[in-house]
Amino acid sequence: MFVRTSKSLAARGVHVRTTPDGEPAYTEAQVDREDGDEVWWRASVPVVNGELGYRFLVQTPGRRLWLNGAGLSAVDVTDAADFRLPTYDPPPAWAEGAVLYEIFPDRFARSSAHPVGTLPDWAVPAAWDDPVAYGTPAGTKQVYGGTLWGVAEKLDYLRGLGIDALYLTPFFPSRSNHRYDASSFDVVDPLLGGDEALKELTAQAHLRGIRVIGDITLNHTGDLHPWFRRAQADPASPEAGFYYFGADRSQYASFFGVPSLPKLDHRSEEMRRRLYEGPDSVIARYPTEFGLDGWRVDVAQSAARYGAIDLNARMARAVRETLQRSAPESLLLAEHQFDASETLRGDGWHGTMAYAGFTRPVLGWLGAADNPELWGVPGRPPVHGGAEMAAVMRQFSALIPWRAVTHNMTLLDSHDMPRFRSLVGGAGRQALGVALLMTLPGLPMVFAGDEVGVAGALHNEDGRRAFPWDEGSWDQGTYEVYRSLIAVRREHAALRSGGLRWLHTAEDVVLFERALPEETLVVQVSRAAHAPLTAPFAASHLLGGPDLSPGVQLPSDGPAFHVWRVERG
Amino acid sequence: MFVRTSKSLAARGVHVRTTPDGEPAYTEAQVDREDGDEVWWRASVPVVNGELGYRFLVQTPGRRLWLNGAGLSAVDVTDAADFRLPTYDPPPAWAEGAVLYEIFPDRFARSSAHPVGTLPDWAVPAAWDDPVAYGTPAGTKQVYGGTLWGVAEKLDYLRGLGIDALYLTPFFPSRSNHRYDASSFDVVDPLLGGDEALKELTAQAHLRGIRVIGDITLNHTGDLHPWFRRAQADPASPEAGFYYFGADRSQYASFFGVPSLPKLDHRSEEMRRRLYEGPDSVIARYPTEFGLDGWRVDVAQSAARYGAIDLNARMARAVRETLQRSAPESLLLAEHQFDASETLRGDGWHGTMAYAGFTRPVLGWLGAADNPELWGVPGRPPVHGGAEMAAVMRQFSALIPWRAVTHNMTLLDSHDMPRFRSLVGGAGRQALGVALLMTLPGLPMVFAGDEVGVAGALHNEDGRRAFPWDEGSWDQGTYEVYRSLIAVRREHAALRSGGLRWLHTAEDVVLFERALPEETLVVQVSRAAHAPLTAPFAASHLLGGPDLSPGVQLPSDGPAFHVWRVERG
Repeated sequence: MFVRTSKSLAARGVHVRTTPDGEPAYTEAQVDREDGDEVWWRASVPVVNGELGYRFLVQTPGRRLWLNGAGLSAVDVTDAADFRLPTYDPPPAWAEGAVLYEIFPDRFARSSAHPVGTLPDWAVPAAWDDPVAYGTPAGTKQVYGGTLWGVAEKLDYLRGLGIDALYLTPFFPSRSNHRYDASSFDVVDPLLGGDEALKELTAQAHLRGIRVIGDITLNHTGDLHPWFRRAQADPASPEAGFYYFGADRSQYASFFGVPSLPKLDHRSEEMRRRLYEGPDSVIARYPTEFGLDGWRVDVAQSAARYGAIDLNARMARAVRETLQRSAPESLLLAEHQFDASETLRGDGWHGTMAYAGFTRPVLGWLGAADNPELWGVPGRPPVHGGAEMAAVMRQFSALIPWRAVTHNMTLLDSHDMPRFRSLVGGAGRQALGVALLMTLPGLPMVFAGDEVGVAGALHNEDGRRAFPWDEGSWDQGTYEVYRSLIAVRREHAALRSGGLRWLHTAEDVVLFERALPEETLVVQVSRAAHAPLTAPFAASHLLGGPDLSPGVQLPSDGPAFHVWRVERG
Repeated sequence: MFVRTSKSLAARGVHVRTTPDGEPAYTEAQVDREDGDEVWWRASVPVVNGELGYRFLVQTPGRRLWLNGAGLSAVDVTDAADFRLPTYDPPPAWAEGAVLYEIFPDRFARSSAHPVGTLPDWAVPAAWDDPVAYGTPAGTKQVYGGTLWGVAEKLDYLRGLGIDALYLTPFFPSRSNHRYDASSFDVVDPLLGGDEALKELTAQAHLRGIRVIGDITLNHTGDLHPWFRRAQADPASPEAGFYYFGADRSQYASFFGVPSLPKLDHRSEEMRRRLYEGPDSVIARYPTEFGLDGWRVDVAQSAARYGAIDLNARMARAVRETLQRSAPESLLLAEHQFDASETLRGDGWHGTMAYAGFTRPVLGWLGAADNPELWGVPGRPPVHGGAEMAAVMRQFSALIPWRAVTHNMTLLDSHDMPRFRSLVGGAGRQALGVALLMTLPGLPMVFAGDEVGVAGALHNEDGRRAFPWDEGSWDQGTYEVYRSLIAVRREHAALRSGGLRWLHTAEDVVLFERALPEETLVVQVSRAAHAPLTAPFAASHLLGGPDLSPGVQLPSDGPAFHVWRVERG
């Protein structure tokens, strides 16, 4: 492993601290090379256990400094922010830094070649331009008629945007337009085009180099699922142990107490076998039979947890193992709205949705002061400067392996929250958010429509508007921000997988570096005009802005964002 | 649960955040009472899982503040420093705040009534006044002839000092004076008086209200242990799986690569049954048959860990369960020289030796600038002010339940390190360390001899000097510091179990509060003269120093320590 120190630190020595079998060990690093103002140190350490936790100790004149995921410390530190290197199989190579695109299938695109037939009894038909009946009973029953056939027809649009992978919200039959209340995992909802449409979508996507991941609830099913019907009706049925029933079976545990979403009991071996353990499980079948490239697991923070029963980590490991055996090129992400660090040690999810470590700090910096709190926290959400945004991001990333930082799904919004554009007050600040999204580590996820300026702030369902295919209605400037930043990300591996270093963070500006041995990129995002920073390097602007030479002032107007490639001497 | 806020904060509301089944929930707190400058808030939250993690959210004019084990934050925080309330059985009531006294049996007291007989072949006889042959092969072979009979004869001395419990380093037969290389767990070493002496010691101790805990290695045995002999000789023996052998059985895993200390393989059910699982195990037998009041488990950081095998947490839970069933009044402590937070969640050890969270930060504040590093960390140990000492203590305690904070064995030194007195340069600073030891949360441990001024800085074995029973050689001032502070601790429950709040921490002074509903104590420890602090309360000095009234200056000379009891209005 390598660590670099500034020559101004005058480091006299560097050690790596590891804890093989729980006992600290120190390995001395050697100077590998000097590079301008920096000294690169190299050390080789044996990996003894499943996870290698480590931190650096830098000897400087007068004191020792610890370097861990939280930064530098002159006093003793706990192991909590140690860097972590998992030895488990890595995520699939295709996912490295991939740009994801979230599609809520009912709202993305209809297909004229494959029109939707008769709607089911629960559906409320909607025209493509109808407003969302958010917050009313019809909010989850409106059917706009988007299908997987429709998605397949728009793949060239998505290729033009630069998307690497689609994330489809659930495609299983249910009694709602969001489909998180599955009534079957055996087939693709005929309303979305059925099995044939999914197979066609993955095949067409793959031809264009685009991957497709699905969405599955392991926390609960819908109460119309035949598993639940049989389990409730017959205590002797094979499904009787799939749920947590009370004494009389009319009582059962459910998601947030919603009776239509009975909670699955992961102690049931048969349930695990059907859902996620082994090659015949749902988790394995869609990758092997339908060409799906992975999953996003719903409500992962509470799935397989119920009172004294906590099989959450075991579930994540089992899902991972099933995919590893049946479809090792699959990406495995999970929904987690909060601190997911305990589930990101490397043997379960490749990453989680980074609401806590990305979306919230970005909204804290860019969000309107009167935004509502979206995660149920009493009172108003935090409003703060760029330094605090970076500090919160760092606090969350310090607890997880770097591999999880780069495979967390970073996002500005999703179908589960209002549109980012509306929360930050329009296109100007949206562009700053997109700049952060496309240049910081992670798997950036674009919720379909964000890129053309779709709004929706009043309710999470208000954001689920049908995609406006009339290009005349698009915000072309916003589209160009997305397209150009995605293109820069695709062209520069440093943005996808390079290390992150915050160079300067203040109230209205953040400056950070993404670096690989081959290239170093520097990003400045300015919320408003600020005191100018001074360039310590020569660099060429990648988005048409001013190039830099050592000693010149960086642009200080705002809102604005810049991406430079540092010139090597 | 309760939380108090200063009226100056103008808190408009307080919520408790918990995470039942992994999903955040907020419970509003109510004002319970106002008390002078403070508002007490009360909330009731259900405990759904084995551990309740929680933090507070305080609404103040203009912003929200999180309060967790790390302090206050205006921005989002991870769950890492959440307060933690384990629901597992609590430690025995007798241990609450108990003062422990460590005895290295060979060095504490001989018994004229029960003289040591013929020494075994490995022993190097030593006169009571002989210097320790530290750092030489004889260092671990010198036998001074202390016995458990001798300890029993000195119990009145210990009662006079105010000790609650003895911690005996191992009493099992071996081939060294430290006995961490056990050759049997079936009997007490005859050299120490055998089974009869231990039974007599615990009986006599109990008559005086003193408990006795033992010391056991679960990481390894000595290579002369018959388990190892049989295991190595015969792959078909019942003990064959007790150790990690290579292909030819001359190769095996051992503690730090020392061949005489073969490492135990905890995958062996038979080994676990003999050593710590069930009523016939060693762990259960000594409490039930010999009256032992608990254990200190040696090398707990690496026991049951070997490469991909990590049964460490399982081992701790199993030991706890065995004691809970066979001898529920037992205290279960473990050696841990580093960050023990992952093993202190409440279902395993009651506490660990707080070298990392107590000893090191105290030495960082009080230790001589040229001290050697004692824990193998390259370079010089940290030297810092009182604020940094408190910050390090807080960083470590933030990761563990309060119950573990109050049941961690706090210590200034032990048989495994040089004497604290020597590391801080004499009696003056030693007294400051003792003041911290006896007034901060934990189970303060006194290494026998510290209280009469025994020195020994050159090696950890140099500290293992025989106890000087000639009172003329004692540092009576140091003895009085120990006696008086232990007495204050015994008289004031707030020092044993009260909450801790740091009121002021600076380079040369720390001021903190220990509070129970019944009483509040305030402690000031000054390393050197400093700017005086101002008393916000009336308080009576408990050690003969000046009483306080609101607005007067606190003493500002140093080195000095003070303990006051706050007068309630």
